[in-house]
Amino acid sequence: MRWKEIDGQVCSIARSLAIFGDKWTLLIVRDSFRRIRRFSDFQKSLGITKHRLSDRLNRLVEVGILSKDIYDEKRARYEYRLTQKGLDLYPILMTVVQWGDKWTLDKDGPPVIFKHTKCGHISTPKYVCNACDEEIDAKSIEPMVGPGIDNKIKRGEATS
Amino acid sequence: MRWKEIDGQVCSIARSLAIFGDKWTLLIVRDSFRRIRRFSDFQKSLGITKHRLSDRLNRLVEVGILSKDIYDEKRARYEYRLTQKGLDLYPILMTVVQWGDKWTLDKDGPPVIFKHTKCGHISTPKYVCNACDEEIDAKSIEPMVGPGIDNKIKRGEATS
Repeated sequence: MRWKEIDGQVCSIARSLAIFGDKWTLLIVRDSFRRIRRFSDFQKSLGITKHRLSDRLNRLVEVGILSKDIYDEKRARYEYRLTQKGLDLYPILMTVVQWGDKWTLDKDGPPVIFKHTKCGHISTPKYVCNACDEEIDAKSIEPMVGPGIDNKIKRGEATS
Repeated sequence: MRWKEIDGQVCSIARSLAIFGDKWTLLIVRDSFRRIRRFSDFQKSLGITKHRLSDRLNRLVEVGILSKDIYDEKRARYEYRLTQKGLDLYPILMTVVQWGDKWTLDKDGPPVIFKHTKCGHISTPKYVCNACDEEIDAKSIEPMVGPGIDNKIKRGEATS
């Protein structure tokens, strides 16, 4: 399957990524959240070449987003599962879904809706300030130099 | 500048994108949020070839994330600004920053910190359920078939 074809899939992540994302990596992560774990199942879901899938999976294992564990020793078959570092990508995927739901929808509405199991309601998660609980956007957030830059300036390793 | 070099920049977005993102598009969007608007300034900030930058900027204008407006008619120079569709990418960038802050930091801490201008506090935004205001994660959210798939099944255009 070509990237241009993925664009039309009934999936807000696929639609958004067709516009601004890496072509495959976040879709593999999305499938991992859907509990896809085996090479052949990723391939079936994404329709990409073995070479490309293998390349992306190895990279995700290398950076610690997926773990690779053997499940069939005789045939040397592996399962790929999200690590904590991988599970922490969840808010990114959800914000991508929400952007896609707002900006790439067809007339049928959102392909997937979400239930918050803790409260039982259909949820449209929102991004809020942890100090005042108000929803944030670009206009209400002001970036400031943090210690990661400031300490380097003090040591003469970076310029302000 | 090569992508491998961006990886080491003191910027959590750059670090995260080196792992899982498109190499340039979201960095252009990040720079737009930093109020960079002119071709030469994008080029200075990102250090990419004119050809590649021009390609990515045109694509972002084409999909309606950036608008392109003339600011010097004589020299045919343009400014690129985020549209509402572009401004709505903000939560995605912020979740990428936060993931990067957690998983790609060096010992100096976060390069950039954020002030919520409405309440005046340094903010670590969080992603919460809009029904109960509790923070959400992968384990507490259950995806369900939405109208975008359901209506297509009813019309026989998709399979469940």
